[in-house]
Amino acid sequence: MMECYLDNSATTKVDKEVAALINRIMLEDYGNPSSLHSKGFEAEKYLREAKKTFADLLRCKESEIFFTSGGTESDNLALIGTFLANKRRGNHIITTAIEHPAVSQTAAFLETMGARVDRLDVDSKGHVDPAQLGSLLRDDTILVSVMHVNNEIGAKEPIKELGALIHDRQPGCLFHVDDVQGFGKLRLIPKDCHVDMLSVSSHKIHGPKGTGLFYKSDRAKVTPTIYGGGHQSGMRSGTENVPGVAGFALAAKLINGDMEAGYARMSALHDIFTEELTGLDDTVINGGDVPYIISLSVKDVRAEVLLHALEESGVYVSAGSACSSNKPAVSATLKAVGVEKWQLESTVRISLSVHTTEDEVRYAAGKIKETVPMLRRFVRR
Amino acid sequence: MMECYLDNSATTKVDKEVAALINRIMLEDYGNPSSLHSKGFEAEKYLREAKKTFADLLRCKESEIFFTSGGTESDNLALIGTFLANKRRGNHIITTAIEHPAVSQTAAFLETMGARVDRLDVDSKGHVDPAQLGSLLRDDTILVSVMHVNNEIGAKEPIKELGALIHDRQPGCLFHVDDVQGFGKLRLIPKDCHVDMLSVSSHKIHGPKGTGLFYKSDRAKVTPTIYGGGHQSGMRSGTENVPGVAGFALAAKLINGDMEAGYARMSALHDIFTEELTGLDDTVINGGDVPYIISLSVKDVRAEVLLHALEESGVYVSAGSACSSNKPAVSATLKAVGVEKWQLESTVRISLSVHTTEDEVRYAAGKIKETVPMLRRFVRR
Repeated sequence: MMECYLDNSATTKVDKEVAALINRIMLEDYGNPSSLHSKGFEAEKYLREAKKTFADLLRCKESEIFFTSGGTESDNLALIGTFLANKRRGNHIITTAIEHPAVSQTAAFLETMGARVDRLDVDSKGHVDPAQLGSLLRDDTILVSVMHVNNEIGAKEPIKELGALIHDRQPGCLFHVDDVQGFGKLRLIPKDCHVDMLSVSSHKIHGPKGTGLFYKSDRAKVTPTIYGGGHQSGMRSGTENVPGVAGFALAAKLINGDMEAGYARMSALHDIFTEELTGLDDTVINGGDVPYIISLSVKDVRAEVLLHALEESGVYVSAGSACSSNKPAVSATLKAVGVEKWQLESTVRISLSVHTTEDEVRYAAGKIKETVPMLRRFVRR
Repeated sequence: MMECYLDNSATTKVDKEVAALINRIMLEDYGNPSSLHSKGFEAEKYLREAKKTFADLLRCKESEIFFTSGGTESDNLALIGTFLANKRRGNHIITTAIEHPAVSQTAAFLETMGARVDRLDVDSKGHVDPAQLGSLLRDDTILVSVMHVNNEIGAKEPIKELGALIHDRQPGCLFHVDDVQGFGKLRLIPKDCHVDMLSVSSHKIHGPKGTGLFYKSDRAKVTPTIYGGGHQSGMRSGTENVPGVAGFALAAKLINGDMEAGYARMSALHDIFTEELTGLDDTVINGGDVPYIISLSVKDVRAEVLLHALEESGVYVSAGSACSSNKPAVSATLKAVGVEKWQLESTVRISLSVHTTEDEVRYAAGKIKETVPMLRRFVRR
């Protein structure tokens, strides 16, 4: 049976080259980068190289690159750190109705700490309206946090336009972008978009779990949220995860080096997939600005049922966002884009990677076409 | 040239078996534990097994085990989380003068947030006095945080006695223990010592960097510090570092399975080392409750100079605590135990592991005996 992993927006397989590097560092260059001897120096070199890799990719300074335990921690640091550092300016935060829980739940936590949070609406495609942002921006707005690419429906937000607007109207307000689903697939240069903070996750780009990136422009005032030995200029204490960071940097180099071609390949696969499905009636594709996230609503088939039926054939997809822990809750994103009621429990996500093949996509589409009518027979009879 | 890594309290080499497991999970069982399909289920199994391993070792419930990015995050969660969750009870925190920066700096941060912090003194051996704790405990004391084994001089604190005292006098006050330097070498069962929270680091016990443990008794009210998808019962959001956690659990199993024998071996090595050094005049050993941390003050030789001279011979030790980032600051621990002024800049730490051999220890001692008189000739002439 073919194994067909199409849940790449949840997590990805670690690249072989990346795993080999991590393995070598764990066994040979295992020093603590804070140690003053050469074992420490060797370890520190990996961190410096990783910073250089990301500074090159994001066209920023190495001093603006920090490593965290993942996208969730980066998002938390952006929100909580900005809130703590900018109390004198205000406590107003603007985000959107379709953020990942790492942003939306952190914003909710900050509300219990006294923050006032506004959430931008989205249209049926999942897009925020810059005009609404303009009407909400105030002198005491300290932060705007908008994701680059939505994790459930692949909506792409107009980051450049939003950044220009904030810069123009409230230059003292910081702009954070959760780029977990965009990094390595779409180029986003923070400075070009007036982005002050950016979150990236390693395990979504064939890097290891347990590490992520926090970009912070030098101008952004952000209070650390984890204290200790003063690592990373005091911005994020704790012994650096050297093998993880080095593996993450290599994965970033690999995926970014092939980015345009990778995107084109995924676009072609997307088209093959949707074309293969044209025969299937009563289905809706939601959002869909990017080719690698396909949100598919299948009438009269519950998402979990379809998911489990497909895995019998070796096809792995997700129900809802699947980025959050395994309680199947109603998707805030689908609700916000205003899908029909039946779609809330009948939507699966198929997510591609640069390593996905045409065979896999054709196989998966075939299995969906085969499985759906069979499952419907039980409900519709 | 022999390579002799004696900086095991800074970090350790990853065990081969552990590295192999991590490698396999990265390449084969790479699913997201939150995914509902079998790839997710396979990944989740590693987490459940890891929880079981630690619950067995700490004789607690699996629901009391949480995974973080490391010891520093665990310490931060203990302090900040307790502060946030127990405001109605009070804002008074008691800690010690010789905590790791992950505790002391976090306590300092909480002071800026309105906490009142008392720091217990230590005697010349680095021991706190339970009577002083008794005199400081108040109705509004929400937290006592005391490390099990000090990372610089190996002082061992009377955790059981302190726990009993807190339980007796202020049962509503939580007790946190930073066990980063004790875990796997000395057995500490939280429930036996009335410990409510415990921090452990993976990379100090031949596990991977980037993961750690946070034990929290069910009774302890602690507010999460990282928000998102609600992973780990909402206590710590963010996709779990499955390979790291599984490797950490295996490392813990290995080191705990051999704990008494390992301790005895390190004790023998400690005695060989100190015996070998008896000929060397004008040296002082500080603290020294545990055999695996040897704090050695060498008169008229600056720590960094000795450290670099020794690494020329393949011997790796640390100057000061070396757990914090590489600015050589004066050690708070050495100051607190009241060492002589010259010791503050002339103290190195030699730290053993269960994998350290007699050959390494004899070689290192020999090199120290050879190097110190040579270095002294320059200063003393």
